[in-house]
Amino acid sequence: MNEKQKILETFPNPNPERDYIIIHTAPEFTSLCPKTGQPDFATIILEYIPDKLCVELKSYKFYLQSFRNDGIYFEAVTNRILNDLVETLQPRKMKLTAKFNTRGGIHSDIIAEYKKEQ
Amino acid sequence: MNEKQKILETFPNPNPERDYIIIHTAPEFTSLCPKTGQPDFATIILEYIPDKLCVELKSYKFYLQSFRNDGIYFEAVTNRILNDLVETLQPRKMKLTAKFNTRGGIHSDIIAEYKKEQ
Amino acid sequence: MNEKQKILETFPNPNPERDYIIIHTAPEFTSLCPKTGQPDFATIILEYIPDKLCVELKSYKFYLQSFRNDGIYFEAVTNRILNDLVETLQPRKMKLTAKFNTRGGIHSDIIAEYKKEQ
Amino acid sequence: MNEKQKILETFPNPNPERDYIIIHTAPEFTSLCPKTGQPDFATIILEYIPDKLCVELKSYKFYLQSFRNDGIYFEAVTNRILNDLVETLQPRKMKLTAKFNTRGGIHSDIIAEYKKEQ
Amino acid sequence: MNEKQKILETFPNPNPERDYIIIHTAPEFTSLCPKTGQPDFATIILEYIPDKLCVELKSYKFYLQSFRNDGIYFEAVTNRILNDLVETLQPRKMKLTAKFNTRGGIHSDIIAEYKKEQ
Amino acid sequence: MNEKQKILETFPNPNPERDYIIIHTAPEFTSLCPKTGQPDFATIILEYIPDKLCVELKSYKFYLQSFRNDGIYFEAVTNRILNDLVETLQPRKMKLTAKFNTRGGIHSDIIAEYKKEQ
Amino acid sequence: MNEKQKILETFPNPNPERDYIIIHTAPEFTSLCPKTGQPDFATIILEYIPDKLCVELKSYKFYLQSFRNDGIYFEAVTNRILNDLVETLQPRKMKLTAKFNTRGGIHSDIIAEYKKEQ
Amino acid sequence: MNEKQKILETFPNPNPERDYIIIHTAPEFTSLCPKTGQPDFATIILEYIPDKLCVELKSYKFYLQSFRNDGIYFEAVTNRILNDLVETLQPRKMKLTAKFNTRGGIHSDIIAEYKKEQ
Amino acid sequence: MNEKQKILETFPNPNPERDYIIIHTAPEFTSLCPKTGQPDFATIILEYIPDKLCVELKSYKFYLQSFRNDGIYFEAVTNRILNDLVETLQPRKMKLTAKFNTRGGIHSDIIAEYKKEQ
Amino acid sequence: MNEKQKILETFPNPNPERDYIIIHTAPEFTSLCPKTGQPDFATIILEYIPDKLCVELKSYKFYLQSFRNDGIYFEAVTNRILNDLVETLQPRKMKLTAKFNTRGGIHSDIIAEYKKEQ
Repeated sequence: MNEKQKILETFPNPNPERDYIIIHTAPEFTSLCPKTGQPDFATIILEYIPDKLCVELKSYKFYLQSFRNDGIYFEAVTNRILNDLVETLQPRKMKLTAKFNTRGGIHSDIIAEYKKEQ
Repeated sequence: MNEKQKILETFPNPNPERDYIIIHTAPEFTSLCPKTGQPDFATIILEYIPDKLCVELKSYKFYLQSFRNDGIYFEAVTNRILNDLVETLQPRKMKLTAKFNTRGGIHSDIIAEYKKEQ
Repeated sequence: MNEKQKILETFPNPNPERDYIIIHTAPEFTSLCPKTGQPDFATIILEYIPDKLCVELKSYKFYLQSFRNDGIYFEAVTNRILNDLVETLQPRKMKLTAKFNTRGGIHSDIIAEYKKEQ
Repeated sequence: MNEKQKILETFPNPNPERDYIIIHTAPEFTSLCPKTGQPDFATIILEYIPDKLCVELKSYKFYLQSFRNDGIYFEAVTNRILNDLVETLQPRKMKLTAKFNTRGGIHSDIIAEYKKEQ
Repeated sequence: MNEKQKILETFPNPNPERDYIIIHTAPEFTSLCPKTGQPDFATIILEYIPDKLCVELKSYKFYLQSFRNDGIYFEAVTNRILNDLVETLQPRKMKLTAKFNTRGGIHSDIIAEYKKEQ
Repeated sequence: MNEKQKILETFPNPNPERDYIIIHTAPEFTSLCPKTGQPDFATIILEYIPDKLCVELKSYKFYLQSFRNDGIYFEAVTNRILNDLVETLQPRKMKLTAKFNTRGGIHSDIIAEYKKEQ
Repeated sequence: MNEKQKILETFPNPNPERDYIIIHTAPEFTSLCPKTGQPDFATIILEYIPDKLCVELKSYKFYLQSFRNDGIYFEAVTNRILNDLVETLQPRKMKLTAKFNTRGGIHSDIIAEYKKEQ
Repeated sequence: MNEKQKILETFPNPNPERDYIIIHTAPEFTSLCPKTGQPDFATIILEYIPDKLCVELKSYKFYLQSFRNDGIYFEAVTNRILNDLVETLQPRKMKLTAKFNTRGGIHSDIIAEYKKEQ
Repeated sequence: MNEKQKILETFPNPNPERDYIIIHTAPEFTSLCPKTGQPDFATIILEYIPDKLCVELKSYKFYLQSFRNDGIYFEAVTNRILNDLVETLQPRKMKLTAKFNTRGGIHSDIIAEYKKEQ
Repeated sequence: MNEKQKILETFPNPNPERDYIIIHTAPEFTSLCPKTGQPDFATIILEYIPDKLCVELKSYKFYLQSFRNDGIYFEAVTNRILNDLVETLQPRKMKLTAKFNTRGGIHSDIIAEYKKEQ
């Protein structure tokens, strides 16, 4: 369990008998560009089907805030958040979409998915 | 039949010979956070294919209003409403989407579905 | 052929050799609530693949207007319009969506479909 | 000082040397209709030029929440909020706009203003 | 007092010491074209500064519904509603905007105002 | 009275005792470019305060349609429509806005006004 | 090859080795109603996968303009444009959507498709 | 008369007896940043009341295109276009708004006006 | 000159002979709440009429970024930015609008203005 | 490797073990029409699943800018960009959508896709 994962808290899925979807949309994500040190801004959309555990909303907010002064690339941060949450929650399915604000006249979306093997 | 289900009234499906879809969108749902006591606000979208029974609209409104001063979590309230309606209406199919207002800069959707076994 | 169906006029499908879709969207539908006598308002969306006949647009407008002072429920009026048009046009496929204005803080859509057996 | 005003906390205006505008927009206001007991929903927009005092945001949120289970009319609640805030803050100028959700197919805005005599 | 005015109910202005604005927006107005008998649809926006009386919302809804099967022109209905309300409420100021749906590819707005002489 | 003005029909202003505003918005205007013969498209917005006469809506539609195959410049057509209507209606005030579709990557609005001398 | 088809010019598909989609959206189509002589307005959306030929854009504009003073029904004009283009271009796939402006309070879409047999 | 002004063509104002407004909105302006050589993009909105002359639309398009490979700052280009047009057209009034695309997370508008002395 | 003002660079107004408006809209401002340490997010809109100096855009971006890890209240940060810019640029007129994201279900705008005495 | 491809820089995919999607949306593309020399404007949307390499964002911006003064047709430029990127990145899947601004009243989208053979 890495330092950032320790921030994440969980609670037992109240309805594990059913596949249902939880979506958390966080439009206030910010980190730094590792090359220029300039701030990047993104909306992070987390969609998942919980298995035994759900992520506690406030701790998830603190987890996202922990990237505020980290230098990290678009592709890396998207996969990093997905991996941290998959390891912590062991969900049935999870999708992470990061929509980054315009840089140099171009805006970028990164979309990564995880599916539990059965 | 629990206390809340007693609020729900039904009427016979006028066209049971056909599979058709009924969608009721209620943007004025409010309950309380069980942790902080603070009010939560959501839009509740109910979609279903009726079998023998349809839910009477006014009673459904009163049913939703009965959560006004209840402390209940996002995930729990969504599954609770779906379960209450499935038991009462015995529909062919039913989907419940709850779209919660922003809390701590994050807004959340919970989507649960039921399908009658055949 | 009921009284309302007599209002509907048809014309021969000019291109029966091809499956194509006709959509008529009527945002000015109004009828009365059978319980309260209060006016209801809806947008009626008719989509169909014609077989031998198409509905003449002006007569369809008059057909919809004929509900203006009728007391009829959401579910019933949607299935009624679909049935009247299916019997009159004998289409290959037809879908009727009725989107009703907010009542008691809830707005409702009813969606019914017909498919010709082959 | 009435019961609700006691909820409001203030802090000293950090820039009293300048006339500037503060706008707080609260889309989650809810109270009850005194006639029917049914919930009403509104967006409350407070605009003011502070003199010696500003309203503390969290206490203002609790103040608005205190109407949750009160029965009170549209016109009365709007003037009531304006009066409570004027007495507490003694602002140079203040405007209160309440935009109520659709009831019976009609939505209503109430706009009241206060200006300090000089 | 004409037949339609009898439908309107009033209540005493709770805050006559202050000039404030009340806006009621009714998007479900319908009447008939006196020439063709075809239904017309409009959004009626009533803005006023009350003096001694406010219009009761439900009675105002019934007043607007009373035009449902009347044949009346755009210009006439707008001035008629303004006149009926001015006589009944004796407001300090009143403005009536009627926004009619497209007819023959053209949509029309009619705006009339009244100001109390002093 | 020119050929186009003959198309315009009028009716007596039902409320000449009051200054009120009539707005007709016609999004389906088309004429030809006198240089290239290519069709132009515009939305024509007519706003006026009637004096003794109002323009009859259907005749106004036919008047606008009469430009369909005329070659005429943006500036000229806007002033022409205003002049024709001012002469026919003798209004207290009139404003004509023509919003032309994009040509060569640029879209153009022309706005002309008339005010009766007193 | 009919008179209208002669207006259409083509150029060789620069990338026939790949299936790719070309969409041309023309919001300025106008023709006449064959019954009333009144102008109709539509947006014409052409989507196709070219085989050996692409349609030259300017000639396609002139082709659409050639309907300006033709009397032709909604259903007929949609199928006509599709047929003319299919014969001229021999595309791998083609879809024609015509979205007509509101007439009598109803707006209409017609959607026709062609697929090359293999 | 500078090189760019030579591109501008004019035609006599067809209605000089009246003050009326002409607005040309050009969303496809592009020039280069003089510091970095990187392309800038803007929407240029020209509003004016013509006196004796109007600008010919096609020549105005070519005039704007002439900046395509020029290095010039936001503030300078806005004032330059205004000055060139004022000198060429001698308008009664003119306003130039340039809305530049986001650079470094900030987008910029520059607004300059000219009024003929009387 | 304080530490933050040192970040700001200026360049001479290229057109001081004319009053014109410069607007810079920065949607990516973030600072910290001094009470909770939680990040706040705002859009900062700067409007001014330059006198002798304009603010260099890149240095203005760095100036705004310098608040990233500062704890500062809504009202204070808005007046602080206005004061820093007024002192540095000595503009003829300046307006600063800060639109803060939703906190506790309420979003806030602060608007402050400066006008040079003459 | 052609001249334009040399502009493109790449970096190793940080998460090659997973199929994930990268989308870059560039609304500031401009080239010249080879027939008329007039500028064309488009939004270029690049979607791909990287294999071993990702495109570096700044170099991709420079690559797109290299078309600024090239004369090239809509269909050709779309396929050209796709081909250059496929050869350089060898992605698992790639889709290129070019949405061109209105020309002659018609706007055009071109959509091309590549899928690695397995």
